[in-house]
Amino acid sequence: MEYGSETLASLVRALSRLPGVGSKTAQRLALHLLRSEQGDAENLSGLLATLQEKVRFCGTCGAITEAEECAICKDSGRSRELLCVVEQPQDVIFLEKTRQFRGVYHVLHGTLSPIDGIGPEQLNLGSLVDRVRAGEIREVIVATNPTVEGDTTALYIAKSLNALGCSVTRLARGLPMGATLEFADDTTLARAIEHREEL
Amino acid sequence: MEYGSETLASLVRALSRLPGVGSKTAQRLALHLLRSEQGDAENLSGLLATLQEKVRFCGTCGAITEAEECAICKDSGRSRELLCVVEQPQDVIFLEKTRQFRGVYHVLHGTLSPIDGIGPEQLNLGSLVDRVRAGEIREVIVATNPTVEGDTTALYIAKSLNALGCSVTRLARGLPMGATLEFADDTTLARAIEHREEL
Repeated sequence: MEYGSETLASLVRALSRLPGVGSKTAQRLALHLLRSEQGDAENLSGLLATLQEKVRFCGTCGAITEAEECAICKDSGRSRELLCVVEQPQDVIFLEKTRQFRGVYHVLHGTLSPIDGIGPEQLNLGSLVDRVRAGEIREVIVATNPTVEGDTTALYIAKSLNALGCSVTRLARGLPMGATLEFADDTTLARAIEHREEL
Repeated sequence: MEYGSETLASLVRALSRLPGVGSKTAQRLALHLLRSEQGDAENLSGLLATLQEKVRFCGTCGAITEAEECAICKDSGRSRELLCVVEQPQDVIFLEKTRQFRGVYHVLHGTLSPIDGIGPEQLNLGSLVDRVRAGEIREVIVATNPTVEGDTTALYIAKSLNALGCSVTRLARGLPMGATLEFADDTTLARAIEHREEL
């Protein structure tokens, strides 16, 4: 009984299973929660108890929502002509923070990865084709991650949707803001030269 | 509704109030818990719900326990002649990990800090004097932190217990293992010279 309490020891173990949380951090968090104001631990407990039951995915785009349809799909102020395809629900959150995109989304819930047995059928791809077929969409921006799986998925989507006469683009590649040439990787630097912009 | 779900947004806010957890980390943890195996979030929820109710402080020494008396105070294999005084319950955990100390503990639950209105009456000091008065204790090791408050508390305890004829010691000060002279602070280095050890 390293912690003097089995409940505390179990909490440390449960917290240390979270990503980026080592055993020292888990211990600090658990002891903080133990000493915290009455209500703090209970509040967290209540949220975790209902999290997976309350949160669902939008029937139209697959983004996070607690309703049948998400707030973005419901928003009549957003363009239905521009659709952004992302890998995961959290990618919608990241893109929304930029306030740069005023169209709608489509969440794939993964990427093509034959090694892991993930083909087109395992992804939210059929309904993407259906949405494009419906005819309102002018351009599909593929915002998958710049990885082998993300790029493979982007090319697959481009092939499928170009066949329907839909324009497909992807996010620009190049040097991130604040980067230095010294520490940029070769592939990024090579692409930045190739796709240089006019000033 | 930045996250598309009020439950998810509340969870991110609750997690970001934890020590060392910023908004980005809170978001990553919340999304991990959302996607986690069924049972993971519920398990954490259950532990947090009962944590503050199950965990209590040992009636003898003030350490963390779920029973009336902690496992260390109950352990007949530990010396009652040697008592180690610490600031917080977690200090017992840290010291136990060293496997160096085979006596019993006494947790103050704080340090003297007149500025914050914490005097001897606000600490678990009365029962420390009672334990020493009972007569079995030969030496009290004060293991408060090497800070102004910790040292003030250590001196107060030494004064109180020396008057009862009890030997009082404190943890050694000096260079920590793996340190370099270059990066040691002046006070530590000065003390390390002053209290140099015979080889």
